[in-house]
Amino acid sequence: MNSVSSSSLDYRRASRHFQRENTVIETRGIVIGGDKIVVMAGPCSVESSCQINELALFIKSTKASVLRGGAFKPRSSPYSFRGLGEEGLKMLAQAREMTGLPIVTEVMSPDQVPLVAAYSDILQIGARNMQNFPLLCAVGATQKIVLLKRGMGNTIKELLMAAEYILDAGNTQVMLCERGIRTFETMTRHTFDINAIPVLKDLTHLPVIADPSHAIGNAQYVSSIARAAIAAGADGILVEVHMNPSMALSDGDQSLAPEAFCLLMRDVEKIAHAIDRPL
Amino acid sequence: MNSVSSSSLDYRRASRHFQRENTVIETRGIVIGGDKIVVMAGPCSVESSCQINELALFIKSTKASVLRGGAFKPRSSPYSFRGLGEEGLKMLAQAREMTGLPIVTEVMSPDQVPLVAAYSDILQIGARNMQNFPLLCAVGATQKIVLLKRGMGNTIKELLMAAEYILDAGNTQVMLCERGIRTFETMTRHTFDINAIPVLKDLTHLPVIADPSHAIGNAQYVSSIARAAIAAGADGILVEVHMNPSMALSDGDQSLAPEAFCLLMRDVEKIAHAIDRPL
Amino acid sequence: MNSVSSSSLDYRRASRHFQRENTVIETRGIVIGGDKIVVMAGPCSVESSCQINELALFIKSTKASVLRGGAFKPRSSPYSFRGLGEEGLKMLAQAREMTGLPIVTEVMSPDQVPLVAAYSDILQIGARNMQNFPLLCAVGATQKIVLLKRGMGNTIKELLMAAEYILDAGNTQVMLCERGIRTFETMTRHTFDINAIPVLKDLTHLPVIADPSHAIGNAQYVSSIARAAIAAGADGILVEVHMNPSMALSDGDQSLAPEAFCLLMRDVEKIAHAIDRPL
Amino acid sequence: MNSVSSSSLDYRRASRHFQRENTVIETRGIVIGGDKIVVMAGPCSVESSCQINELALFIKSTKASVLRGGAFKPRSSPYSFRGLGEEGLKMLAQAREMTGLPIVTEVMSPDQVPLVAAYSDILQIGARNMQNFPLLCAVGATQKIVLLKRGMGNTIKELLMAAEYILDAGNTQVMLCERGIRTFETMTRHTFDINAIPVLKDLTHLPVIADPSHAIGNAQYVSSIARAAIAAGADGILVEVHMNPSMALSDGDQSLAPEAFCLLMRDVEKIAHAIDRPL
Repeated sequence: MNSVSSSSLDYRRASRHFQRENTVIETRGIVIGGDKIVVMAGPCSVESSCQINELALFIKSTKASVLRGGAFKPRSSPYSFRGLGEEGLKMLAQAREMTGLPIVTEVMSPDQVPLVAAYSDILQIGARNMQNFPLLCAVGATQKIVLLKRGMGNTIKELLMAAEYILDAGNTQVMLCERGIRTFETMTRHTFDINAIPVLKDLTHLPVIADPSHAIGNAQYVSSIARAAIAAGADGILVEVHMNPSMALSDGDQSLAPEAFCLLMRDVEKIAHAIDRPL
Repeated sequence: MNSVSSSSLDYRRASRHFQRENTVIETRGIVIGGDKIVVMAGPCSVESSCQINELALFIKSTKASVLRGGAFKPRSSPYSFRGLGEEGLKMLAQAREMTGLPIVTEVMSPDQVPLVAAYSDILQIGARNMQNFPLLCAVGATQKIVLLKRGMGNTIKELLMAAEYILDAGNTQVMLCERGIRTFETMTRHTFDINAIPVLKDLTHLPVIADPSHAIGNAQYVSSIARAAIAAGADGILVEVHMNPSMALSDGDQSLAPEAFCLLMRDVEKIAHAIDRPL
Repeated sequence: MNSVSSSSLDYRRASRHFQRENTVIETRGIVIGGDKIVVMAGPCSVESSCQINELALFIKSTKASVLRGGAFKPRSSPYSFRGLGEEGLKMLAQAREMTGLPIVTEVMSPDQVPLVAAYSDILQIGARNMQNFPLLCAVGATQKIVLLKRGMGNTIKELLMAAEYILDAGNTQVMLCERGIRTFETMTRHTFDINAIPVLKDLTHLPVIADPSHAIGNAQYVSSIARAAIAAGADGILVEVHMNPSMALSDGDQSLAPEAFCLLMRDVEKIAHAIDRPL
Repeated sequence: MNSVSSSSLDYRRASRHFQRENTVIETRGIVIGGDKIVVMAGPCSVESSCQINELALFIKSTKASVLRGGAFKPRSSPYSFRGLGEEGLKMLAQAREMTGLPIVTEVMSPDQVPLVAAYSDILQIGARNMQNFPLLCAVGATQKIVLLKRGMGNTIKELLMAAEYILDAGNTQVMLCERGIRTFETMTRHTFDINAIPVLKDLTHLPVIADPSHAIGNAQYVSSIARAAIAAGADGILVEVHMNPSMALSDGDQSLAPEAFCLLMRDVEKIAHAIDRPL
């Protein structure tokens, strides 16, 4: 059956009809989906203990409040760096211990869920797994917070139905993430679907996060898209930061160096204040 | 030849290499492309003298500074309302006389250029005509300001090359307008390409305007996209407003009623101030 | 108004409800839209009298029956070769005189219509002008055969409504041409929408032609797409051929050399015979 | 890293440079990737023992040679029918016993692989799982034949890299399947990328199968796309058939009734013969 023709009953638990008030999620004192804008930042991949610690301390010194970093990496090519696995998770946990920052990291298959859940505060479902239904069911069976990214070829409605799998399995702590869709435009990596922000905020009570880094794929434009997402109503942003982007093992082109990230934080804060949302 | 593979020489006059400073355009005391954010507002179609006058007076009472309105309407179906033609132009001119607001209106073919240029302050090239090269040459041969809209199936680079046609013909007063592209997403009319705003501001010195109304196609979401566009760096917005959207002869779904437009102006102004740009 | 939501009344004259039987078009003894498959072939651009004559004689020696060639060329960049204009039309007419092949060539603006109509047997509306409504009205006001190409960002329904403009203006001799749409796939120039062939043959009585050359953009794959289009039910194909593709002033990558074109004709003929349609 | 910019080394084992000759796959006497065109047919979902047996006997009576049917169903909505699971696999195995037809059925997660492999001859990786890398590795670790479907938002190159994961894990028996991509066109369910057929046949030695049913989503057009795919060079087709499509638990709109399937087989055979490939 064509999903477009399915009724809105397909995402009943995710819908505003089911729950009028915003879902508010809390982890280690950080509140997501409330008035405050949340900034999650960190490297694409955890590369070493040294790298993630240095970066975590830097992130901690800013108003960002969640540390992101990949230990299990979905890569289009089997010959690309696929992450450090459990070693990476341990490094993330150590960085958390040092800084108090909660961590978000990706889980790629149902059998990885217990392992990743043991180390992470927030389980990320990546864009390529948005319709990996056994994985959605597996994270739905935990009580861990889930960050669900929109697939690059998936509609807004499909994103809501993917969230519904998790909610239907009993886990209510889900946030959605717009990270760009595939279009004919080739000058940018993807096309950030800014329309999805107000549409999602209207249709669902779940928090909506924006990932400008993957959406545009070029560090110099990330801040503009971050500002736009907040202005459009997003509850937070997810940003790739690296102490030395040109040396990053993955996604270096779109990663911000510390100085550029500080400028982004300053500019995002101005926009957040303009709409009465603290950072 | 595939346009994607063409060199950047294809839009040399439009590029920042050709001219480092922003192009600033002035009409009837309104400056476009400077620090100030410009708001152009009005109905999709001019429907009657009464309608456009009432609306022009309303627009004049806000901080919007340019009146938009279609007299020649490109419509997908031959059986839709195609506009009032020269009568509509006369009504626009009358509304300008009454309010002092400069007017922007669409021109659809080379032979219409002298007529539309005689009444209008800014010639609009619509999305469907972005690659109507004889029309680009015809407006390029005038000294009228041109608002060039991106085609819904056209790339950022093709937009720059279309502008180049006008510049190459001798007319330097061109502004570009992002108004949404065609993607697989069906919940919104088009997908507003927010990425295009910082990319265009980087590549070209020409002013960049955003049209949130056509891009999302639903009045309740227009303000979010307008705010996002300004936050991302646009120099202005083009918004459809109607005293009574449910009675509009075209584009009623996406037209704002006066009250909603006032709220949009208030919210856009907050964002503009946050980035030190007055309205 | 969103065109997708418009009723089928928007293309009433083009629809099978209006006319059950196929529209059959005839020019200089060549029948289009009947049982026979029509092959239109020639260079992207007319480059010289010598070039077009040599090619016309070659085309004449095959089972292709219409000569194509561009005299007015819509080019994304103003700095690309834009065609020979009226000189090119004269060369085409001369080639027709020599070979008896009817000619199809593009017209780009309403004021060019009388000129192009004076030389050409079939007026081509290019993809970028599919929604150039004054142009559609202008060719609709003639009694010339029209080949209407689908825009690269336009839907099947919009193609039918564009045809309706011509039919509504009084000209019933219209054929439609699928030539590829814009998608996220970058390995080919466009994506040939093969689905459009059976859908159009179902919805409309107008002949449906396929242009595999623009759709895939690479000479080595053109024959496969030509065969597919005929197998799917197209009434003919439009193919770019050049005596020396590497020297072509435009579209060399996708133009077939004579030998490759002969192989294409042989293969297309086999497919045509398999579905009981002579070439 | 943007996959588009990655070198062709990313699919070295899948490429023609690695292996010039076509990969030929054999199961229960059926050869895939040779001269003969293979037709795989059956219902979207296995619904009951009775249903699949009746259909298998019907399929056996035609020139189709592989039975398809879903036991584990990826569905966009959690409230849609998700398949009979292992019961469905048992029914498929029983139908195979009765008819001798090898079976192809979908596997959705790494932990399901042993179970599905125990019953099935060919493991299908569905479009939504094309970049489910742990699943690709899991099927790569078996010696089962794999049918890998292209994701609706994935490029041709990404399909080749997904196949590379399987090949790199040690399983050489992989065939690729084009089943339509997401585009702006709304009149059909997806857009069948006919261009992908000759491009894949050129770049890789792996067999290429076409799924016209999902690609167009409307039973009346399936045969046209099947013919086109064979004419363009596909090695086989995968078609949804149901004894009573209006009663199907999933994908009824695009499923062919027996009579329509017989007509499709007759027409596909004509095209196959025209290009010297037996059915």
